[in-house]
Amino acid sequence: MDYKAAGVDIDAGHETVRRIRTLARSTFTPGVLSDIGSFGGLFRLDAGSYKDAVLVSSADGVGTKLKVAFMSGRHDTVGVDLVNHCVNDILVQGAEPLFFLDYLATGRLSPDVAESIITGMATACRENSCALLGGETAEMPGFYGDGEYDLAGFIVGVAEKERLITGRAIQAGDRLVGVASSGLHTNGYSLARRIAFDHLGLRVDSMVPELGRTVADAFLEPHRSYLAMIRPLLDRIKGMAHITGGGITDNLPRVLPHGTAAVIETSSWDVPPVFRWLQQAGRVALDEMRRTFNMGIGMILVVGHERVDAALEELAARGGRDARVIGEIVAGDTPVVTYT
Amino acid sequence: MDYKAAGVDIDAGHETVRRIRTLARSTFTPGVLSDIGSFGGLFRLDAGSYKDAVLVSSADGVGTKLKVAFMSGRHDTVGVDLVNHCVNDILVQGAEPLFFLDYLATGRLSPDVAESIITGMATACRENSCALLGGETAEMPGFYGDGEYDLAGFIVGVAEKERLITGRAIQAGDRLVGVASSGLHTNGYSLARRIAFDHLGLRVDSMVPELGRTVADAFLEPHRSYLAMIRPLLDRIKGMAHITGGGITDNLPRVLPHGTAAVIETSSWDVPPVFRWLQQAGRVALDEMRRTFNMGIGMILVVGHERVDAALEELAARGGRDARVIGEIVAGDTPVVTYT
Repeated sequence: MDYKAAGVDIDAGHETVRRIRTLARSTFTPGVLSDIGSFGGLFRLDAGSYKDAVLVSSADGVGTKLKVAFMSGRHDTVGVDLVNHCVNDILVQGAEPLFFLDYLATGRLSPDVAESIITGMATACRENSCALLGGETAEMPGFYGDGEYDLAGFIVGVAEKERLITGRAIQAGDRLVGVASSGLHTNGYSLARRIAFDHLGLRVDSMVPELGRTVADAFLEPHRSYLAMIRPLLDRIKGMAHITGGGITDNLPRVLPHGTAAVIETSSWDVPPVFRWLQQAGRVALDEMRRTFNMGIGMILVVGHERVDAALEELAARGGRDARVIGEIVAGDTPVVTYT
Repeated sequence: MDYKAAGVDIDAGHETVRRIRTLARSTFTPGVLSDIGSFGGLFRLDAGSYKDAVLVSSADGVGTKLKVAFMSGRHDTVGVDLVNHCVNDILVQGAEPLFFLDYLATGRLSPDVAESIITGMATACRENSCALLGGETAEMPGFYGDGEYDLAGFIVGVAEKERLITGRAIQAGDRLVGVASSGLHTNGYSLARRIAFDHLGLRVDSMVPELGRTVADAFLEPHRSYLAMIRPLLDRIKGMAHITGGGITDNLPRVLPHGTAAVIETSSWDVPPVFRWLQQAGRVALDEMRRTFNMGIGMILVVGHERVDAALEELAARGGRDARVIGEIVAGDTPVVTYT
């Protein structure tokens, strides 16, 4: 008996590492001191350029959006989702990314599929000036179905301690600025898939008239990164919520101090077609939609009311013409989020 | 239709986060500035105490050792495996751990199983003075079998740049010091499970006379951390290889500079019973055993020959009485590792 007969192909692993190495090198920033394949990735912090450096770190997955990638055989977007999701998670605390590592687990390793996934990651890493410093590629026979894999990402960024965005200064009267999402992002796919594939019986390549595109095109739209747009505003933002892992309902309270609540003006933006279509086709209650999906708002910034106009102008200048005031902070904390 | 009907229970997720929070807090070191549940974990580096800080980072999984945990219903050891594996991976470059994040993906989230897994992680984090800073718990219906999950870990440590262990100074005549593994660690389980369960038809609770214990006890023995034992020696070590993701054959060459090779004296240590039993029961070729399993050596240190005796004494004083010289470095590089 040997390891290959048991389903693990060390040579395919080496071939994959060889291809990943080239892609990863294309993302390397001056801080990177190691190459792919060393036990640990090395990143020189240049600590002298910070008064009091705080590392900000997050772990994320892509969830069952991966199933849509499997069904459509398109593996080059999920890596973008993963990186941008991580970048946004640390951005809400005021951090800029330093490096990213991935975990890719498969039943049987296909160097081609792995290369496609990592290509997406490397592209997003370059766009966010974030080094793809390393990762783990695991072949786990009998664990994942044929052609299936799971994918997780880890990011480390840095912020000056006194510039961390903590939400502590948020008070009644502050405005909520919503920035548009690019689609479902990485959120609510178990429900979305059930509606589209189980309930409506669609295929990934089915055309959806309400959307003017196929299910796969709508569902695989990559999670957007807000770094470039929001970075120049960081020191004028009191708090930020990334609308992920659930809707506004559960995410916005994560950054509000005790004694404050949020009122969301639902008439202030148009819910994009993909959400309206899912709601109608699945007869999903509105509350449930708002708890599960981002409903068209991917990031919420809390800004003092006197700074809103300037913030919107700056956002508009960097691709955020869709940013707008979607509500405000009020006193009291039950319920934390009210929709009007 | 709602999200819960689609298989995702946001409330079970909240309950799990509540339990994890308590466990994670027990690991917090003075650098931790955030609590579990924030978008990103915050860790203050105290950069002023480093001349030139290098962050050292690694991502790892537990592989199909998880299958043994599922079969035996024991979920409190795999978190230990994951943390210690990560700690060892950055230790080989001279880094001490700062913080750890996990990714736990399940089909249907059981707060009890999640708590058991995280308890193992928290225990190992405390033992390694490493903060469990955050993580992602994902419920992915239809993705993982009932009662199954995958688990990945991500660690960040720090080393002074001039003290990084790079292997660059390794030269002919240096000695290889092997430190015992505690079992299979997290390596070779696809082959080990095939031999024990498929070929021999054993169950996890079957007693193995050759081992004096059950299959589960032997296979779930946690991956050992070498941090406490090796830390005091770091500035006397030229290079280090963590024997994981394969055997000595493929791991030792990762740290050897061009023009050097290693000769391993196989008579210098006794291969532990679990490996001899697997080899015999599976009729596995010796080369394949050495390429797949650690064979009883979990970590190899490369030490100048004049420093070996002192190093062995120091290791012995910290629980490493089983450390011994298992070979030496020679000139030439084909093949990189020779067994005699």
